[in-house]
Amino acid sequence: MTSQVVPEPSADLLHLATAVRSAATGLGQSSNQERQQALSAMALSLEAHADRIVDANRQDLAQASADGLAPALVARLKLDVQKLAGAISGVRQLSALDDPLGVRQLHRELADGLVLERVTVPLGVLGVIFEARPDAVIQIASLAIRSGNGAILKGGSEAKRTNHAVMQSLKEGLACTSVSADALDLLTTREESLALLRLDGLVDLIIPRGSNELVRFIQDNTRIPVLGHADGVCHLYVDKEVDCLQALRIAIDSKTQYPAACNAIETLLVHREIAPTFLQIALPAFEEAGVMLRGDAVSKSLGVKEVATADDWSQEYLDLLLAVRVVNDLSEALEHIRRFGSRHTEAIATTNQDTAEYFLRAVDSSGVYHNCSTRFADGFRYGFGAEVGISTQTLPPRGPVGLEGLVTYRYRLRGDGHIAADFAEGRDQFSHREIPLRET
Amino acid sequence: MTSQVVPEPSADLLHLATAVRSAATGLGQSSNQERQQALSAMALSLEAHADRIVDANRQDLAQASADGLAPALVARLKLDVQKLAGAISGVRQLSALDDPLGVRQLHRELADGLVLERVTVPLGVLGVIFEARPDAVIQIASLAIRSGNGAILKGGSEAKRTNHAVMQSLKEGLACTSVSADALDLLTTREESLALLRLDGLVDLIIPRGSNELVRFIQDNTRIPVLGHADGVCHLYVDKEVDCLQALRIAIDSKTQYPAACNAIETLLVHREIAPTFLQIALPAFEEAGVMLRGDAVSKSLGVKEVATADDWSQEYLDLLLAVRVVNDLSEALEHIRRFGSRHTEAIATTNQDTAEYFLRAVDSSGVYHNCSTRFADGFRYGFGAEVGISTQTLPPRGPVGLEGLVTYRYRLRGDGHIAADFAEGRDQFSHREIPLRET
Repeated sequence: MTSQVVPEPSADLLHLATAVRSAATGLGQSSNQERQQALSAMALSLEAHADRIVDANRQDLAQASADGLAPALVARLKLDVQKLAGAISGVRQLSALDDPLGVRQLHRELADGLVLERVTVPLGVLGVIFEARPDAVIQIASLAIRSGNGAILKGGSEAKRTNHAVMQSLKEGLACTSVSADALDLLTTREESLALLRLDGLVDLIIPRGSNELVRFIQDNTRIPVLGHADGVCHLYVDKEVDCLQALRIAIDSKTQYPAACNAIETLLVHREIAPTFLQIALPAFEEAGVMLRGDAVSKSLGVKEVATADDWSQEYLDLLLAVRVVNDLSEALEHIRRFGSRHTEAIATTNQDTAEYFLRAVDSSGVYHNCSTRFADGFRYGFGAEVGISTQTLPPRGPVGLEGLVTYRYRLRGDGHIAADFAEGRDQFSHREIPLRET
Repeated sequence: MTSQVVPEPSADLLHLATAVRSAATGLGQSSNQERQQALSAMALSLEAHADRIVDANRQDLAQASADGLAPALVARLKLDVQKLAGAISGVRQLSALDDPLGVRQLHRELADGLVLERVTVPLGVLGVIFEARPDAVIQIASLAIRSGNGAILKGGSEAKRTNHAVMQSLKEGLACTSVSADALDLLTTREESLALLRLDGLVDLIIPRGSNELVRFIQDNTRIPVLGHADGVCHLYVDKEVDCLQALRIAIDSKTQYPAACNAIETLLVHREIAPTFLQIALPAFEEAGVMLRGDAVSKSLGVKEVATADDWSQEYLDLLLAVRVVNDLSEALEHIRRFGSRHTEAIATTNQDTAEYFLRAVDSSGVYHNCSTRFADGFRYGFGAEVGISTQTLPPRGPVGLEGLVTYRYRLRGDGHIAADFAEGRDQFSHREIPLRET
């Protein structure tokens, strides 16, 4: 995708996007119950069409094998009865979560009879570009409908039969509800997914789920806001006052529990006073866990075998590789994170509470942890039910983004003939009296 | 500015921005009291240097007159003792507002001993580009410091002596406090303000306050998020069931109370059943208020003198001009707003509560009003104390943006050696128990 020029949207794509937008406008005004019924109907329809979906997936898998797709990708592509059942159960769990819409965030009397409120509303239409995993269609579609948003999805071509069968089932489910089936649609060609980036005014948020290269290309080629992250260069800093065994457990888990994840650590920073002691137990443990270390000069002198070059500090290995650097103190660790980090998730291992709190305040990442694994940076683990991705942007939503991150808000002001001139000219005065949020 | 190419940042600019960033990092960890003291010191220093500031402004005014600047611009440029006192009082009011930082938005036990919280933190460094009004420096600087953010400001060249004197006073004030005076700085050249757009990683949010052309140029030439809006094409829809006199008062106020404001209406939509009655009283009233109307065929047939062309529907006149269109029903009004509106602020005048509520739900603008003037779309009037601008983006912050819109949040997770593998392998389980937000 990344070598291509972004084309103008075709008439067909504009037609599709306009239909999704129009359905989303209706969906945005639906009740909580209507959206819950829509999710139930989607889940039922997926169950009813499980055979069709699994059959389509078998064809995709056969094609993938014939095309010589890497075994890891084939594994991600697979959607058998069990995985499908898990995804369907996820739809039902989302349905049970609190409604993210219609939440009143502010309620204030501006003047007698003039009342302001700020209420959560859907974003509109999500454009989601993802690779491989066809269960993502189910997850994203249900997050979108639950939060009152339309969604235009584009999956990887290797999953096209599966994605199509899933989308067809979801639409058939919606057809029995008050939510229009047009609220969801699937793009099939690469040209369409590129042109999606130009649908300002029809698509409100682009969510890329894929390689760093894909995300960076999208960020550079659209004026639509992009939710997500390119790099996940996470750090663990081992302080001088530390429970070495606990720090090591956290380091091993943060690196190895799923090395290909964005929340796995890529660099280990170790205070120089603890480095000899810590590395003495850590080196054999990393070796046993199959982790190859690349160290700076000091850590090399303490036994790390390979040398880290300047490039290593900003590398997202996504593999059993870990850069190691010995730092003189906490501020050198903070400076390293500021310079090379991607503002995803960083952790400190320390027994000193003051040091921990200082780190938690000073590090400017979407997640900052004390004495636990960076692998907890995840919407499910945070209790959000599901996530569309993890954002490393500065502005909200950041961190793992679930339902709450897929809504925005609107100010509503109700008066009885109130005009600004009366206030400017002293005939009326602002009261700015807070009204309890639950009062109607 | 808009015909220029965005240059690479100079070494001087990088040096300045790095200093602001570094000061902002310290500021971000300051207490509420420290930031309140900083605002007090800023206010005191402005008072102490009032003569210097007003003198500098006199020189700017003399230069502006000599250069033949339009009288309206000269009026905006003026900063006399009275206007300065008003701005200083604004600084003290901001100081008294609730601290936007450190607000816990979420508090959840993920598992025994593993506790997640989401807490508001500053954005980092704001880059603010504004035209004319030198009191904006005071307002923006105090909003930035109150919300824990550094700020790099660039004002119009016609106010450069005033802006410099103000900034010098603010920095002298900060010098007596625990907040670094480096947290604020002023750019002086046009090249610098262009290069500011390239300071990704050093500047977190660009806030343009100026012409639509300026805002659009900035949006198109930076990867840094931009807060604000280009157009403000606001609408008032007069429903068939309406108190005509009240609707007219609202229409006149929305158009004339300050026609150059972004929240003034540009188009009046009138239900065809009420159009003859409404226009009969409205036409002479608009004429008396000096408002020139441009109408569609139906409203022309009802007495509007000038014809509106297709271009008029998307025009932001910023003047005593108003486009008028007669619509067949509410849904035609909604469709018109969807097509030509800028998602700023729209109002409905109706005595029918159901129609009003339908409009409030259906219109996708940052502000939607019932029976009141669109001129209320403003941070002061909403009770925010001050605003940096009004955002028409979909994602938050949108609408008038005050202190609360200048912060983001961070997830903090505190554990005691918790690792993800224990949960993945069933040795530990998530509890996801909510903790009351005020509990520590």
